[in-house]
This record gives sequence, C-alpha cells and structure tokens, in this order.
Amino acid sequence: MRVLAKDILEGTVTGASGQSSEELCSIEVAGWVHRIRELGGITFVILRDRSGVLQLVLQDTATVPEKPGLTLESVIWARGIPARNEKAPGGTELRVSSLEVLSRAVPDLPYQVNEDAAKTGLESILDNRTLSLRNPKIRSIFKVQATIIEAFAAYLRSQDFTEIKTSKLVAGGTEGGTELFEVEYFDRKVCLAQSPQFYKETMVASGLERVFEIAPAYRAEKHDTPRHLNEYVSLDVEMGFIDSEKDLIELEKGVLAHVFEEVLRKNSNDVAAWNSTVPAPALVEKAPTVPYDEAMKIATEEAAKSKGGAGKFFDINPEAERLLCAWAGREHGIELIFVNQFPRRHRPFYTYPLDLGDGKAASTMSFDCLFRGLEITTGGKRQHDYNAFLEVLPRFGLKPEDMENYLALLKYGCPPHGGFAIGCERLTQKILGLANVKEASLFPRDRKRVTP
Amino acid sequence: MRVLAKDILEGTVTGASGQSSEELCSIEVAGWVHRIRELGGITFVILRDRSGVLQLVLQDTATVPEKPGLTLESVIWARGIPARNEKAPGGTELRVSSLEVLSRAVPDLPYQVNEDAAKTGLESILDNRTLSLRNPKIRSIFKVQATIIEAFAAYLRSQDFTEIKTSKLVAGGTEGGTELFEVEYFDRKVCLAQSPQFYKETMVASGLERVFEIAPAYRAEKHDTPRHLNEYVSLDVEMGFIDSEKDLIELEKGVLAHVFEEVLRKNSNDVAAWNSTVPAPALVEKAPTVPYDEAMKIATEEAAKSKGGAGKFFDINPEAERLLCAWAGREHGIELIFVNQFPRRHRPFYTYPLDLGDGKAASTMSFDCLFRGLEITTGGKRQHDYNAFLEVLPRFGLKPEDMENYLALLKYGCPPHGGFAIGCERLTQKILGLANVKEASLFPRDRKRVTP
Repeated sequence: MRVLAKDILEGTVTGASGQSSEELCSIEVAGWVHRIRELGGITFVILRDRSGVLQLVLQDTATVPEKPGLTLESVIWARGIPARNEKAPGGTELRVSSLEVLSRAVPDLPYQVNEDAAKTGLESILDNRTLSLRNPKIRSIFKVQATIIEAFAAYLRSQDFTEIKTSKLVAGGTEGGTELFEVEYFDRKVCLAQSPQFYKETMVASGLERVFEIAPAYRAEKHDTPRHLNEYVSLDVEMGFIDSEKDLIELEKGVLAHVFEEVLRKNSNDVAAWNSTVPAPALVEKAPTVPYDEAMKIATEEAAKSKGGAGKFFDINPEAERLLCAWAGREHGIELIFVNQFPRRHRPFYTYPLDLGDGKAASTMSFDCLFRGLEITTGGKRQHDYNAFLEVLPRFGLKPEDMENYLALLKYGCPPHGGFAIGCERLTQKILGLANVKEASLFPRDRKRVTP
Repeated sequence: MRVLAKDILEGTVTGASGQSSEELCSIEVAGWVHRIRELGGITFVILRDRSGVLQLVLQDTATVPEKPGLTLESVIWARGIPARNEKAPGGTELRVSSLEVLSRAVPDLPYQVNEDAAKTGLESILDNRTLSLRNPKIRSIFKVQATIIEAFAAYLRSQDFTEIKTSKLVAGGTEGGTELFEVEYFDRKVCLAQSPQFYKETMVASGLERVFEIAPAYRAEKHDTPRHLNEYVSLDVEMGFIDSEKDLIELEKGVLAHVFEEVLRKNSNDVAAWNSTVPAPALVEKAPTVPYDEAMKIATEEAAKSKGGAGKFFDINPEAERLLCAWAGREHGIELIFVNQFPRRHRPFYTYPLDLGDGKAASTMSFDCLFRGLEITTGGKRQHDYNAFLEVLPRFGLKPEDMENYLALLKYGCPPHGGFAIGCERLTQKILGLANVKEASLFPRDRKRVTP
C-alpha cells in the first residue's frame, strides 16, 4: 500500500507487526519527479507528493527498467527500503528496489516547476497554470485559501448561521445596471450576479435570520489592476436583528480572528514559504473602528508626515487604504481597521441612513474593513422599512416597478438586518503578502484571460 | 438581550443571578407573527424565530400600543415574563409587558405562510419564494441541505482532500459543445461551466491529489422535468492514484454514510416534518455494486415481476432507476445501488476504458449511484495516458487542436485518477422524499423561471 513522503520522514510508517519504518523492506510511494541528479552511477530522484518531498536512490543494481526514460514531472511509483541519510531532505531516503513510470512527462516543460516561483513573471505563471500550480510554493496559496474558506464557515456555524446556495443567474443587478455580464438564457438575457445581496437578505427574512454563502461573484469591470478580478469568490454574511453596523464589525472580528487562528494552526509552513506572518488572533479585537470623516483626516495627516504634504483625501482610495492600515499597525498593533459611517453618496441605495446630528441623514450605517493596505470587506446595515425605502428610491434614479422583488422582501415583514462580504482572494493575498490578487485565484478571469 | 423561543421552551434562559426562566421578569424575544388569535379580550400571538415558535399573551393591561396594528408576518419585539401553560406550544408562554412592531407586514399576503405547505402548488410556492421560504416546513429543506454540504466537506477533509474554487467561465464545455449557456464576456463569448471536470483534474495533477469543490454548475437543457435544474449545486470530488472506479465507490459510500449520520444528528425534526426517514449510516456499506449489463437484467426482471413483462431495458432510464433501487432495498436493505462498467458509448471521451475479456475495451471504469429511484451521482476513472487519449479522440469527433489545455494536463505527467459529482439538490430531494428537485433549490432556474 502506498504511503506518503511525510509518513516516511516522520517515521510514522509501521508494518503490521509494528516495525519502525527503517526496518520495513517494502515501502511504496508515488508522486511526481521533482528533481533528478546523477552521481557516480547512482540516480537521486526527488519525489514530490501531496505531503512533501522524499529522496529516492536508484542504484544500478535496482530493478529500474525505465530509469533512462525518467523525465521531470513524470508520475512514478516506487518500492524500496527507507534509510537514514543526513544529506537527504528530511533526513531519510528511500533505496528503491523497483520503479514504474505511471505517466511520462514530455521532456520540454514550458514552465520549470522546481524553480523558485519568484523567477517567473505572473503572466507566464498564469499562462502555464496547469504546470505552475505544481510548484509547491504556488500551490501552497490554495492550501491557505482552503483553510480560510473552512474557518469562515466553521466560525459562522458556531454562531448559529446557516449556509445557503443561491442562484447566480439574475434578471438584473442589485448594485445598479452597469458592470454586469450578460448570459443568453434560452430566449432571453439574464445577468451573472454581482453579489447574493437580494438573496441573502431574503434568507434572513425567511426566518433563517443568520446566513452565509460561499460562491462566485462577477463584476464586468474593465480595469486591470493588481486588486481586481472579474470573477471572485465572495464570502457573504447576512444577519437579522442587529442594531447597527457595529454588530457586524464585531462579527467580522470574530470571523477574522478564527481565520488567522486556523491558518496559523494548519498552514504555518505555507505562510513561512511566502515569508509572511499571520496577525495574532488576539490582536484582532484591538483593530480600531474609525468614522469616515475621521479616517479622511488620519489619512491626510499620515500622508503629510510621510511625504511632507500630499494634499487632502476626499475618498478612501488605494493610497488612503495603505496609510490607514499603516497607522492602525503603528497605533493599535495590527494593520486592520474598520472605517464606518460612509457618506450616503458612496453607498448603495439599500444602505441604512445615519443622522450625525445635523438632521440631514447624510451618513450611513456602513463600513469597510481594510487589512494590510487593502479593502477586503464592504458591509452595512440595510434599510428594512418599506416606506423609508420607497422614499429613497427616486434619489438613486430607481423606480418602484423595477424593484418588485426587493419591495416584496420588505413589504411582508423584514427584521432590521445587515451583512458584509469578504473577498476571499484578497484576504488570501494579504495573509500571504502576494503582490497581485490574481495569484490568489486558481484560474483568474480578467479582460484578456479566459483560459485555462 | 434577546433570547430565542427554544431557550425559553427548554428553560435554558437564566438571569445573571441564576434564576430559572420562570422567575425572570424581563425576557426579550423577537421574530415574525406566525398566528394571531383573539379570545375574551386577550390576544394570543404565535411568534416564530429561527429556533421555533413561542406563544405570546397580550393582555389588555399590557403596554402594547401597536397591538391593533398587528398583522401576520410582521416582525415584532416583545418583553415579558415566561409562564408555564400546558396549552401553549412547548408548554411555556410569554406574558407580554411591552411590544414593538419592527416591520409591519401588509395585511394581504399572496402566500399563507402558516398554512400546510402541501396545500399550495409548486408554481405558487416558487412564484412567492420570498414568502414561502418562511413556512417552517419549506425552510427546513434548506437546513437539511446546509447539513449535507457541511458533512460532504467535513468527510472529505477527514480523508485529506483540499477544497478548491475554480472558474465557472470557460472557453468551451468538457462534455461536448451542446447544452451550454453563452456569456458575453467583454468582446468575446464564453460559456458557463457544466462541471469543474477539467479544473478538478488539473488540481489532482497539480499535486493536491485529492480535491473537492462545492459550486454551481449549468446545463442548458430544455426539458422541464421533476429531476432537472438548469443551475444546480454540484458536489464534486476528484482523487489521484486510484486503481479503478471501485475506489471511488468506496469513497462515495463514506461520504454518504457521513451525510446520513449528520442529517440524523442535526435534522431529525426537519426529516420528520417531511414524514421521511434517513437510511441508517451502517447500511450504506451494504449497497450493492452491479455491472451495467447485470443491472439491465435485474431491471428487466423486476419490471416483469411488477407489471407482468414490460419488455427489455436497453438503458438505465428513470423507470429502471426506480426498479433497481427497489430491488436493492428489498435484497440489500437500502435503496442505494452503484451501477458500474457502463458501455463506452454512454460515457464521455475522457472515461477510462475497461476490457471485459473480449479484447474490445467496449466498457468503462465508470459508475452511477442511484438512491431512492434517482441517479444522484455520475463518476469514473479518467484516461490519464496522453497517447491513449490522443487515440480515442477521433472516435468522439474531437480534434487535438481543440483540446489543447486538456492535452497539456496529460502531457506533463498525470497520475491515474478519477472522481464523481453528487447533485446536491437531488440528494436533498431524496433524503426528504420531495416530489420535485426544484423544491430543493432556493431559487430554482428553469426554462421559464429566472425570478425571484
């Protein structure tokens, strides 16, 4: 029976009669040829499997008929005897008695799997995605991402949230009519959902009260930047019976602390491979919540300090995001900051208004979460009052007759509620310190790229 | 602070000084008005929240200014004193001292939430989805579905599988060119993925070896039947280093046993609400695996028995699926059966061939899983040999130049592998005994329906 490289290196492989791995004479392994080195008639093969790498030693005396045909990335099966060797990676090697090539790779690889991932440009990595994902460091991004997704769901379940799966084919967008991809749906056109906004609100109002969804979301944005994807995994949350966006910020802090905790526990090697660190989970609660106007001031002051006056900020643009996170890191010990009370004009029509005391209700119960210089979350309380909702529609150029389903949601009794969405790829990017969010998408889609 | 109906009924609510719920004078609840009944000047309101229902008693003396305005489905908040009352649902009621309407529902509901779900036709249930999901029995379908999704993922993680999220926008279909929805993607057309087939195989070959994905899948099939959805949640699995489809059948048995175990543990009330039962997890391993030809014979014999000769079956059509499951239930104690060794002509081009001894390789290492009369899974071992793959393409009318990415996957070393996909809605449907698969989709899409 096949065992993993890790089992051999950790000495956990034991035979039926309890021998240690060194005493076993017939260990089977399988995986990819990561490296080949010839030395004095002996072939050393570094075998890579899902658990790690293991050195195989192929003596001339071994029954290895296909040895001359070995190529990098071929998939092989081998049987042999484990032996300690301080020079081998992990301190143990397998002395091979028989070997079989399960799938022979052609000799000329368009991407060198066993080279340092940093040596190749992003375009080449993405063009050769089926090969570049074999690079252990590149693959480790997606082991971290799997942990993020698992931890996100686990924490919310612990808070009595129910997972939902809603349609991605919608008659129109909830965020407005632009930036939508159209789908030919039988004899009509529908759109790919920008977010499950309407559906997650519906499920709160259905009585589930607390829901989350992990699903693709689509934005037909034309810009090609290191922070944008046209298709991304949205980690969506919606919660009933909240007072304000502050309940949501508390919830997101719980989510992030658990994500960091799990990544630290399960992926310390993957994080180390990227020379990154994960914030201590206990620090998350220290992340400040700063109102929008105050955040503008801080960003302006920080810019003045670092550049001797960069002018005043009028929006939380990427530069302000970086300055605010740096400020939070210095003042609060974690590069994580929640900006709330966004002005009405910056938020969608369904955002709950907030009166800052001037009677104008020009602010909103909304927030963004910025982490390590990047917005990773947008959220807020929603308007749940039918009449207040009707009143606000004209200000956004919307007509009640176009919002029939949304109005039905509020018309028949809807609790105060709100929610947020975390961009899964952005969170992955920032945990590992990746330069471009596309690196955190298995098969990223942008304006030019639809394959592989 | 708000407590849940369940906490009051189970007497788990205690104050800071440890009083029991009956002694507390200030319990707060919130939820939807499920029923209203007037009796001798007293108003009884059945409040529904995510945990269940609770009777509220509104005396004339209570400070309930908005009492006259109470309508069904309005969302209310109430404070009061719990008291035992054998006639109340659950044996405890809340004697209300103050009440507030958080969101008033208009009086005329297009769907009666508090009526027996069976009284309404499927079309009305789906047309009024935002309301019909409030019916506790209908909503319970999606509590079961959430458990299925959670258990599927948990079992696979326990077997060292990694969760992946792959693009749903693809240049073409893996199953052939028909039945695809087209998307306007900037200045070109792409398709919605029918399955993550190519991507999950890529991730096996990437070195993750064992992967799963939970994501939407799309089929532009025109037929409108109780077993088809144009958008569904596919529970996908792919695994490297397998010998044959039998390894996959063993894996699926493990998945299903764990799903049944978790649904039994978490959703016994939901299953009971549908008068259904969940198979005992221990019975799953007794499910038979029957080769295709043998399955045809069994179906033909069973049809003869039940109808006095229905002719011979030449395909596993819906009637054969029902007969085979009934046979498995009678002979093996569980209405679950795996049919393997499908003929070449019935399976996609990438299916691994199987020679049944006649040298023709006319069979395949493939299988379907049938549960309670319905195919819930298709799977099989895939061809991982580059040259064998090239040879078979012309027989399927395919050209190598159209399969560039697929060929790249096999060209550079690909382990023997295979996988399967479980239709999440179909499994939900069959666990609960629902008549139509659309009932198990929150917002189902069919040829006519794209809203809500």
